[in-house]
Parts: sequence; C-alpha cells; structure tokens
Amino acid sequence: MTTAFHIAARDGRARTGTLTLPRGEIRTPAFMPVGTAATVKAMLPGSVRATGADILLGNTYHLMLRPGAERVARLGGLHRFMGWERPILTDSGGFQVMSLAALRKLTEDGVSFKSHVDGSVHHLSPERSMEIQRLLGSDIVMAFDECPALPATDEAVAASMRLSMRWAARSREAFGDRPGHMLFGIVQGGVTRALREESAAALTGIGFDGYAIGGLAVGEGQAAMLGVLDYAPGLLPEDRPRYLMGVGKPDDIVGAVLRGVDMFDCVLPTRSGRTGQALTRRGAVNLRNARHADDPRPLDPDCGCPACQGYSRAYLHHVVKAGEIIAAMLLTWHNLHYYQELMAGLRAAIAERRLTEFVAAFEDMRAAGDLPRL
Amino acid sequence: MTTAFHIAARDGRARTGTLTLPRGEIRTPAFMPVGTAATVKAMLPGSVRATGADILLGNTYHLMLRPGAERVARLGGLHRFMGWERPILTDSGGFQVMSLAALRKLTEDGVSFKSHVDGSVHHLSPERSMEIQRLLGSDIVMAFDECPALPATDEAVAASMRLSMRWAARSREAFGDRPGHMLFGIVQGGVTRALREESAAALTGIGFDGYAIGGLAVGEGQAAMLGVLDYAPGLLPEDRPRYLMGVGKPDDIVGAVLRGVDMFDCVLPTRSGRTGQALTRRGAVNLRNARHADDPRPLDPDCGCPACQGYSRAYLHHVVKAGEIIAAMLLTWHNLHYYQELMAGLRAAIAERRLTEFVAAFEDMRAAGDLPRL
Repeated sequence: MTTAFHIAARDGRARTGTLTLPRGEIRTPAFMPVGTAATVKAMLPGSVRATGADILLGNTYHLMLRPGAERVARLGGLHRFMGWERPILTDSGGFQVMSLAALRKLTEDGVSFKSHVDGSVHHLSPERSMEIQRLLGSDIVMAFDECPALPATDEAVAASMRLSMRWAARSREAFGDRPGHMLFGIVQGGVTRALREESAAALTGIGFDGYAIGGLAVGEGQAAMLGVLDYAPGLLPEDRPRYLMGVGKPDDIVGAVLRGVDMFDCVLPTRSGRTGQALTRRGAVNLRNARHADDPRPLDPDCGCPACQGYSRAYLHHVVKAGEIIAAMLLTWHNLHYYQELMAGLRAAIAERRLTEFVAAFEDMRAAGDLPRL
Repeated sequence: MTTAFHIAARDGRARTGTLTLPRGEIRTPAFMPVGTAATVKAMLPGSVRATGADILLGNTYHLMLRPGAERVARLGGLHRFMGWERPILTDSGGFQVMSLAALRKLTEDGVSFKSHVDGSVHHLSPERSMEIQRLLGSDIVMAFDECPALPATDEAVAASMRLSMRWAARSREAFGDRPGHMLFGIVQGGVTRALREESAAALTGIGFDGYAIGGLAVGEGQAAMLGVLDYAPGLLPEDRPRYLMGVGKPDDIVGAVLRGVDMFDCVLPTRSGRTGQALTRRGAVNLRNARHADDPRPLDPDCGCPACQGYSRAYLHHVVKAGEIIAAMLLTWHNLHYYQELMAGLRAAIAERRLTEFVAAFEDMRAAGDLPRL
C-alpha cells in the first residue's frame, strides 16, 4: 500500500482532507501529540487515541539516546514498543541536538554532541538520521536540518538554511524508495521572505512527499510567525501536506490553519497538563489558583473528557496542589481532548465553508474568558 | 439499607464471604488499595475498579489537612469528590499523626500536632475523628487509637493500648447510630498475648460492627506478626469482619488469610509501582535492572493487566529509567491487578476447600522465582 494526500474541501486558504498511510488515516488539519521518549507523558496510548489523535510525534534525539534506535528495531519498532499502532511521525533530531545536547560540533557532514542523559558522544548526519528513523519504523520521516535560534543575522540564517538544503538533498538520497513511508522536507530561512523562497524552491526542486515549515515558534513572536505564514504555505505544492513544526498555542494553530497549514505538533497541551495548567475554549485556566479550592463546577461543563466529566475544579485544584500524578493524568487528557476537539471543529468548519464564523466564535469565547467566580 | 457480613465458606480458619454496604458488596478476603489524598496514586478510579477492587481506603490525617474534611463535605463527600462511588474505609488518623506529623502532644483527650504540609496546628480526638470521617462520608469508620512504634516496653504498650480502649469507647459513643455505616474497633497490645486478650475483651465488651488488628507491620517482623495472628483473630467474634491494618506483602496476606483475617490494606502495590518494582506471582521484579533492557517478554505472560498485555519488559525498563509517568501508571496497575487476582484466588480456594493446595502453588511459584534470563 502506498500513501496519499487528499484535500476534500477548502475555505479561503484553509484546507481539510485526509493523509492516508498504511497504518491509518490522518484527518487534516491534524494535531500530533508529542510522545518524546516513546510515551505521551502521563497518558496511555488508548487514552491518546480516545482524544481523537490520528498520529503521534516521536523524537529521534531522545529515542536514539535512550533506549537506542537499534534496540527499538530489535524489539519490533517504535509502534510495537510503545503500544501505538497508528502512524508516527519522527523529527530528525536536528532541532533537539541544538536545544538539548552539550558540546555540539557542527560540520558539513553533520553534528557531533554529548548526550544530556549520560554524557556519551554521538553523531547525527542526514544519513544517520534517516537510518535511525527507519530503525524506529517511522511512518513520516523528517529531513535532517539545522535550526538557528532567533534573533540571528540574515547572513547566519542564510548560511544555516543553505546547509539544511544540502542536508535535505542528502536526506532524500539516503531515505531512498520506501513505499508506505513519507519523507518531508523542511523549509528554513527565519523570518526573511527571500530566504524562505530560496529554501522552498530548493526543496520542491528535490521533491518531497510533504513539506514542513521549520524555524518558527523559536522566540520570534506570534505576529512575526503569522507574517511568515502569510506567504510560506503558498511557496509549497498545493497537493502536498504542510506541517508547521512545534506549533503551538490554540490561537497559533487557528491562525496557521487559516493560512493553509495542515499539520501541527506541540508539547504545550502535555507539558501544561503536568504543571496544573488547563487549556480550554475559554482560554488557559491555572488550577493552582486558590479560587478553585471550593468550586464544585467542572473545568469546562461542555467538555466530554474524563477530567471535566468526573471531577470538580476543587478536586483538580487539590490534586495539583498535592502533587498527585492523577493531576497530570487528568489535565493532560483534558488538554489533548481540547486540542483534538479544536482540530475537529476546524475540519468541520472548513468542510462546510464556515471557517470565518468558527474563528469568530473561537475568539469570542476566549475573549469572554474563564467562568465567573462563584 | 443496613449492613451485613455473610460468611459463605470456611477452609480451616480461613473464611470467604461478603460484606454488604449500601454502596456495594465487598468480597472477602478483600484487599483495599490505598487512596491517601483522595486518589489511588497514578490510577484513575475506573482503572482501580477494573483491577477488581471493591473498596478503597482513605487517610483521615491527609484529608483533614488537605483539602480539609469540611470542604470535602461541602463538595458532596469523598466518594463524589474523588469519583469513586463504591465503599470507602477511612482510618482514624491516629496512626499517621504518630508517623508523619511534627510536634505531637498526646493527652487523655487526644493529640495535638503540626501539619507536615503547612505547619498549621490541629487536634484529633475520638470525637473529632468520628466527625471528620462522617464529613468525608466514609462507609467504614475506624475508631481513633494510638499505635506505639515497636519495640517498646510491655508497660508502654499496655498504657497505650488502655488509652486506645478508652478512646474506642468514646469513638463508639461519638459515632452514634448511623444505619448503612460501620464502625470498626482496633485491637492493640503489640506482640504480647495478654495485652491483645485484654484489648479484644474491652472492644467486644463495647461492641463494634467489625474488628481490626492494629499495631502490627510496624517493624516487628513477619514471624512475630504471624505469631500474633495465630491467636488474635480467635479473640474476636466469628460473625464480624476482621481487618489487619497496613498489611502487607503477598505472603503476609496469605499467612493472615490462613489465620482467619478478612480485610487488608497496604501501600506496597502502589508505592512499589512508583519505584519500578513489580509484584508478581514469581515474586518481586525490579524493572530498573539492566537485564530487562532488551527483554521482549511481558512482565508476566499470564497476567491480564495492561502492562503485561501491551508492553515488553524492555519498554517497562525504559520508562522506569526515563522517569516517565507511564511507568508509575503501568506498574501500579499491574501491582493492584496482581493483588486483586491473589485475593480472588484465595476466595475461590476457600470456597472450594482447596486453600492448602492454593497456598502450596503460591509458594512454589515464588520459590521458582522470576523468568530465567533470555
């Protein structure tokens, strides 16, 4: 079986459709929960699926260090290892080497670094990244790239982007022909339009199964990010999925969907769930706040997740304050449920050409804010 | 509706039956998972029930300090607060004041102490303990007692036991008449038979709905504990449930069931689950051990829990080493599942008068030890 991307409907620049892989269909626009180290933190895989997730993201950097890609392969691949049989997208490791590893040494060939886990020395290159992602059994493989932190000079961003484009070509070559698996290229170029255009041209010249927009959500701010998204999706083939890496807050996602992006991943819903922060249709709610201590109401009375169906804000406040694991379990579940509900709402609105109204209602609800105090 | 304890079958001194409460039936011998702070750590209530638990234990000491008994009452009681609609037994707070609180001051009236959470000053007495357990909505209420750490002089144990007996009478008086709820007295007296006899006589003279054996599993060792259990259950009315508090390891439980105990609670399965320790039919397995790193086999191939059905030992090792929350979730689930399976096995064996064979098989399996290395 091969892969396919089908756009079923458009509303403005937004699109909705289906990305088909042998392991399952991905409804787009899609949000991919992050399963860094072979687990979506504080969730069982069946619960992640119950929120509506069609695909997870795994982190090459973490998995290569622990438990190790060769070990995962011997154990039958990442899907079997972590108990998630649907599609998995893996990043290339490039971004996290830059943000997490120590003593990085960057050359034309790739990057050498010390593990943040045990100090052991490792090397990543386009070829090794492709090998690791193959060993993991990834369904959607990301080209190996470099992502400079912003702000940076145009010159530094350009040099980094051109290195990433040479690595993209090597990634394409090393990936080879793998029916049923997809390889995505990653557009770089910071917030500079000419560089983004040069990068998109280079990637489309090589030819990928899908295209990611990288190097955003790294500190440039929402306005600058949306500024890039005003033109960047239009630089990419209409008939290929577009993935905005590492994004984002609910309003970032809505803004990006409006501009033609199809796929997203972000640690925000899971990380927030472990720090007492709930993401809701009414905006963020900090359950640590003492105003919830006696509140018998659910977090969101209209939400169908177990946290909202089974518990009061008072309970959530209590378990957050007490540092109980169930707090992370319930709030992560809620946050992922909310994200998937948002994506489902966006998909339905695009299909029915009422995205403008949907976004207006989304913004109104957030502007109204959390439930009034009792 | 009132309460009832029905013994359906006996095998030697062991008994199996049903303790009926308005919120549900408790199959005995029963193991009660510990839900200290209104959560069985790392488990959702539905999952706890799925392991086969009929009743949970809640800790008065923890709950009175956070979130507070009056608050729980305003929020509809502990069952509703924590999402567990079946019976809950609460301890009296006495034991944990002694083990956790600071600056304790013990008088004939009760005990004053400082909270380990925020240093605030509190007072517990038989009357206040009964009030707290009523506010929580506990189905089985424990009399307020004092439990001295062993070793202690006979004189100290006797004085403490006699204080507990005076408190037991005050607990009975303060509890009053509450149809559908049960009050259990607690036999004290350390490892001294004459003191245990005196305590049991005092309690049966007062009259309780059930009787606990307290003051064991506090450092005296298994042989001394079983020595007390050789005679202590026989000091109590045949037709009332007998509860051995804070016990224990699987072999402690089997030894106590053989001696006529009906109910148990212990943090071992939940606490072990958070430290990478699995309790299995083949004994304890430390998933931290590197020998599991490449082991594709389940923890226990014959176990039906999600950890054993969905994951390899290699995965469990990985998530334990990585400190992932899913490690606590999966191993706690497994451990509680194993405990409930053990209790179900004991109940069936007693009902079919083959407890001797069951215990022999239990011991053989543990003696054989964990699966051989691959």
